[in-house]
Amino acid sequence: MKFSAQQIADFLHGEVVGNASVEVSNLSKIEEGTPGTLTFLANPKYTHYIYQTKASIVLVHKEFEPEHPVEATLIKVDDPYACLALLLNLVNEALTAKKGIEEPHYVAQSVTLPDDIYLGAFAYIGERVKIGKNVKIYPQVYVGNDVVLGDNVTLYPGVKIYHSCVIGNNCTLHAGVVIGGDGFGFAPQANGEYAKIAQIGNVVLEDNVEIGANTTIDRATMGSTVIHKGVKLDNLIQIAHNVEVGEHTVIAAQAGIAGSAKVGSHSMIGGQVGVAGHIKLGDRIQVGAQSGIPNHVDDDAIIMGYPAVPSKEFARQVVYIKRLPDLTRTVKELAKEVESLKEQLKNK
Amino acid sequence: MKFSAQQIADFLHGEVVGNASVEVSNLSKIEEGTPGTLTFLANPKYTHYIYQTKASIVLVHKEFEPEHPVEATLIKVDDPYACLALLLNLVNEALTAKKGIEEPHYVAQSVTLPDDIYLGAFAYIGERVKIGKNVKIYPQVYVGNDVVLGDNVTLYPGVKIYHSCVIGNNCTLHAGVVIGGDGFGFAPQANGEYAKIAQIGNVVLEDNVEIGANTTIDRATMGSTVIHKGVKLDNLIQIAHNVEVGEHTVIAAQAGIAGSAKVGSHSMIGGQVGVAGHIKLGDRIQVGAQSGIPNHVDDDAIIMGYPAVPSKEFARQVVYIKRLPDLTRTVKELAKEVESLKEQLKNK
Amino acid sequence: MKFSAQQIADFLHGEVVGNASVEVSNLSKIEEGTPGTLTFLANPKYTHYIYQTKASIVLVHKEFEPEHPVEATLIKVDDPYACLALLLNLVNEALTAKKGIEEPHYVAQSVTLPDDIYLGAFAYIGERVKIGKNVKIYPQVYVGNDVVLGDNVTLYPGVKIYHSCVIGNNCTLHAGVVIGGDGFGFAPQANGEYAKIAQIGNVVLEDNVEIGANTTIDRATMGSTVIHKGVKLDNLIQIAHNVEVGEHTVIAAQAGIAGSAKVGSHSMIGGQVGVAGHIKLGDRIQVGAQSGIPNHVDDDAIIMGYPAVPSKEFARQVVYIKRLPDLTRTVKELAKEVESLKEQLKNK
Repeated sequence: MKFSAQQIADFLHGEVVGNASVEVSNLSKIEEGTPGTLTFLANPKYTHYIYQTKASIVLVHKEFEPEHPVEATLIKVDDPYACLALLLNLVNEALTAKKGIEEPHYVAQSVTLPDDIYLGAFAYIGERVKIGKNVKIYPQVYVGNDVVLGDNVTLYPGVKIYHSCVIGNNCTLHAGVVIGGDGFGFAPQANGEYAKIAQIGNVVLEDNVEIGANTTIDRATMGSTVIHKGVKLDNLIQIAHNVEVGEHTVIAAQAGIAGSAKVGSHSMIGGQVGVAGHIKLGDRIQVGAQSGIPNHVDDDAIIMGYPAVPSKEFARQVVYIKRLPDLTRTVKELAKEVESLKEQLKNK
Repeated sequence: MKFSAQQIADFLHGEVVGNASVEVSNLSKIEEGTPGTLTFLANPKYTHYIYQTKASIVLVHKEFEPEHPVEATLIKVDDPYACLALLLNLVNEALTAKKGIEEPHYVAQSVTLPDDIYLGAFAYIGERVKIGKNVKIYPQVYVGNDVVLGDNVTLYPGVKIYHSCVIGNNCTLHAGVVIGGDGFGFAPQANGEYAKIAQIGNVVLEDNVEIGANTTIDRATMGSTVIHKGVKLDNLIQIAHNVEVGEHTVIAAQAGIAGSAKVGSHSMIGGQVGVAGHIKLGDRIQVGAQSGIPNHVDDDAIIMGYPAVPSKEFARQVVYIKRLPDLTRTVKELAKEVESLKEQLKNK
Repeated sequence: MKFSAQQIADFLHGEVVGNASVEVSNLSKIEEGTPGTLTFLANPKYTHYIYQTKASIVLVHKEFEPEHPVEATLIKVDDPYACLALLLNLVNEALTAKKGIEEPHYVAQSVTLPDDIYLGAFAYIGERVKIGKNVKIYPQVYVGNDVVLGDNVTLYPGVKIYHSCVIGNNCTLHAGVVIGGDGFGFAPQANGEYAKIAQIGNVVLEDNVEIGANTTIDRATMGSTVIHKGVKLDNLIQIAHNVEVGEHTVIAAQAGIAGSAKVGSHSMIGGQVGVAGHIKLGDRIQVGAQSGIPNHVDDDAIIMGYPAVPSKEFARQVVYIKRLPDLTRTVKELAKEVESLKEQLKNK
């Protein structure tokens, strides 16, 4: 699909400067712009690119006045970045629009499929599953017995949801996500073996949760592992049984949260971070990548390291460790001087 | 399904104190108990909850005598925790009972399906696969040619087992597990490129192995990658080619074991731990989370850190590193004092 | 299939010493050799095994002369390791040869399947997908709309490729790999929630890329996440949106590369390494396992640590940290001595 500068400007309530009939079919970054694409200038740091870009249209702030000639057509808007996000969404919806029911699929007899569902081929829907409005279930997805899927849920190819889990409204789960696998619960026996402790709880995702590819969230032993509303999890994250993640917290790829830990709300957890079991992290904390958190953390803490300490302290530690050879040399020299002083004093 | 206190007491050989006809349909934790659920009191630390819990039934030790009125019906047993584990198993078996063959599936001509199998829709069984008794193969599982599955094996949705691998009796593999992918073997060439080294070995899981969601175990270059009996692996773990994990060892989520490493028996490896290739870890070791192990480790070692050292030494290092700013200041002051002493001595 | 020593020697242009008619059906390591297998002696360190091995045939260098009697038949060749790699490939090809189209599958109407394809059961091919020669698509693979698959591509069971991604010639993707999931892009809102930023770019794998099981590569926000030719990625790796990995770089398991980072060519990145977003790593670098890289790295650097420093410096830091208790004790003793010197000086 192609759109003219005029059409886009009308849609964004913007103003065209230049050729209003030039057409674009895709978006680009300003430094990589190619003919037939629309790009944007939001960060003043990138202003110089506007004089070189080969993109056909550039979204700019309504106050922007070029200092040199610009080849591209400009569309002046109130907020170029917000407008771009709007266009990205439009393009994405066009690319991923899916409706209808593909064959073959497996749907248990007790299930009623809503009219507006997308159900991909080779998808499996177990007994008594409840499905909301405007749900997209891509091919090869598994939805176990008694699962509840809210409205506007998207399950990308190969998502696996074990029985009895609950997926809130507007949740998006990317390919390979596993929800509700057994928690890692084994009781050591006298003979050195381990006995399995059955895990009969579930996983509850509240509304507006997004989960990245191949992330795993284990079901609770009893009760629920809970991901509160608005949480965003990146790829390959491990959430253990009975964990709770507070609302609007974002966690980067490959982080791991051990059993029964409570992560606060509105926090940012970096990639590859590890959180110990049974601890409580405060709200609004920020954790640097690869940190290891063995103990409770207060609200608003900014921490990093293994084990994690306040980030400023971590930065200081790094500097002091780098200076250790110097410090050691200084101490050796001091020892010599002290020895020499003792000698001199003795001889006085 | 609902059960009365009397039915449960009879089953557990316990004694009812209170209303024997009250019914429950689920289990709960004592601090989260709700009407219609059964909970337990095993840890004396939680005793105060028994006077507040809304659970209908509480399993207690036969010696337990309440000091205040208790609303719930009590069932007195020899070992409340063991009884709970028993009930958890019962509930779990009821929830996950599966038999029969769902359509469509793909089973190669050379394979005979046992009568008691559960074969989910969209499962794939390759040529010459051997399948034991009471096996459950969930939907969308892939079992490659010449794989052997022992008795009581459960393969959860989307498990992938490459050709020629062997899965022992009573093994449970959770969703998304990949068994037998190629080991990471590439030979550097003179021109800076890498040539693939074909990986023709396999993976052998001995009996009673459980593997968490999305964990990957690579096939050996030649011979076998071996997971010995009773090993429990958590989610998202990487086991490289030709690794051997000793019996009854448990490994927490996101740990990685590099090629040809040998992990001992009866050990506990923490989450996100990394083990270097070609090294040997002793038996009965304990490794703290996120540790990096570059070298051989003796039997019974308790280690932590990057690189890993004895855990006590690690704790000490952490303290000493925290004190580095103080130490540095002390050294600076000493240097000044020594300088001043030298000066004074010169003037004497 | 069985082959005689003579057949193998003819194939490898080698010379038989011993029983030319002995037959083998598999390969083995020299220390684990069993009758009916062929093994090899490439590393002189292993020479003593040749006098004990139970393997029927041993590939040896043409110059090799046994110092003791050898039971096995020898085949003398120019380069035993290269000959072994050749045999491994042959065996592997025999084991994994696949052709034909299995039922059921889902292929969109706009797609033409090449004659020589292997298409496994339950595989899904979306609209307008282009498929090269000699492609193998294993069961339960998902290929989204507008994906391009080059010649000789192998997609193992359960691979998921989102729409519009490009897979070059001779690429191999192992089970559970996810290509083209959404990048982790969310814009913080004034109310503390996050707004999704649609990810409309794609992933491009150039030729000769191999990707290990359950690794995830996210699509770009705009433009492409690019894995250049010859790159080898191990299992459970995370490659974020808009990352670029330079040609012939190898990355070990569980490493993670954050958004928009550029990894150079001909580099070796260890397991569980973390690379921060928006940084640039030089060419031909080597990164030790579990390192954390927060900043740009020069060409040819050899680094390790958290945060990463030159590996030699890291080794030194480890030693100095171990000596901290000693250093602290020395400083305390010095302080005492200085105190005593001051005292003595006062009294002089």
